[in-house]
Amino acid sequence: MPTEKSPEGPRGYAKGRRKREQIIESATAMFGEVGYNSASLREISARVGISHPGLLHHFPTKADLLAAVLQHRDEADNELLQADLEGGYDFFQALVRLVERNQQRPGIVELYSSLSAEATSPGHPAHEYFQNRYDMTITAMRTEIESRITAGEMPAATDPDSTARAVVALMDGLQIQWLLGRDAQGPRVDMAQVLLDHLRLVARIDMTVAVPAPASDAAPARA
Amino acid sequence: MPTEKSPEGPRGYAKGRRKREQIIESATAMFGEVGYNSASLREISARVGISHPGLLHHFPTKADLLAAVLQHRDEADNELLQADLEGGYDFFQALVRLVERNQQRPGIVELYSSLSAEATSPGHPAHEYFQNRYDMTITAMRTEIESRITAGEMPAATDPDSTARAVVALMDGLQIQWLLGRDAQGPRVDMAQVLLDHLRLVARIDMTVAVPAPASDAAPARA
Repeated sequence: MPTEKSPEGPRGYAKGRRKREQIIESATAMFGEVGYNSASLREISARVGISHPGLLHHFPTKADLLAAVLQHRDEADNELLQADLEGGYDFFQALVRLVERNQQRPGIVELYSSLSAEATSPGHPAHEYFQNRYDMTITAMRTEIESRITAGEMPAATDPDSTARAVVALMDGLQIQWLLGRDAQGPRVDMAQVLLDHLRLVARIDMTVAVPAPASDAAPARA
Repeated sequence: MPTEKSPEGPRGYAKGRRKREQIIESATAMFGEVGYNSASLREISARVGISHPGLLHHFPTKADLLAAVLQHRDEADNELLQADLEGGYDFFQALVRLVERNQQRPGIVELYSSLSAEATSPGHPAHEYFQNRYDMTITAMRTEIESRITAGEMPAATDPDSTARAVVALMDGLQIQWLLGRDAQGPRVDMAQVLLDHLRLVARIDMTVAVPAPASDAAPARA
């Protein structure tokens, strides 16, 4: 059993790794709440309970921290999406399930809504990241639509690019409505249902999607 | 609207009014570029060429300035929308024309994209404004869809609420793609065309929309 302070040893390594994860979690919440531009490294370090230089040891700049947050989220989301696709869900079904999961985690939805809007400015450190992310997402969507057209599941007159962009835009825009509805009067938008309605219209096929119960390890909804 | 003090008579009043407009213009650009949270009153006053106290004379707080920016935009947009409706365009056509106009003014698109994402946070000074704005927009859209269903122009099975939310979400999400495309490789998304494709699909009617040439007084596109 390691006993001494051993920054190089397994225990020190695990501790550093845990601290790093806590910083990423805290930054994820903070970037979502106030955006990247307004987020303060000092406040993030205070929330985690480490010193400001302690945080800088892990992430020398705010942009480094942002890159780590985005990479961390992408890895987690890609794993879940891949698991769905390997589990027999088709691409459209997997999208609806992704949105179902998002409805259990407002912090992540906030993060992407805030950052994607901020990062449209060419000088933003996540600008290229979001350009690439949208390129990849729209390309994947277009490829899916093209193969459905070929399979006769979507009308031959469908414009794959326009339809792909519309689906992605719809998913983004719904997040704003959903976040705004947190403390509003009246019923809140069901993002997964609106997406499903839209996909059924676009694809003109019946898509029976097994919408799962919220995963037990889902982040609790914040007020 | 705050009343201006004009010790120097009509000319001083006109000057104060012009200064006020310049501040609103500058704030519109700034809020769009970096968001409300990060925007600095000092930088806005420097851009306009007045002192910081000079700016505070017109707008005592940043939240007052934000309210003025939003009110100014709403008045301008509502006038144009009303003119289209009175000119014989139907609601869907007027929406496409609105998006056409937006494609000539990236600063305004930036403003709404940044602010709507930021303002999803319950503490944001424009939070209630955006809640009300979305309520009104979605209600107007739902009313339009319901009357088209009644008129037999849309399938009776259409869910008015889901369809209304989808159209609004689509318009919002396209703005992110369009702004990100400013300095990206490849063709840029045509927001008006994607919206029109979507409306044709939803309404399953042919909507011949006269897309006007860019208005000569449109703001020039920024790099």
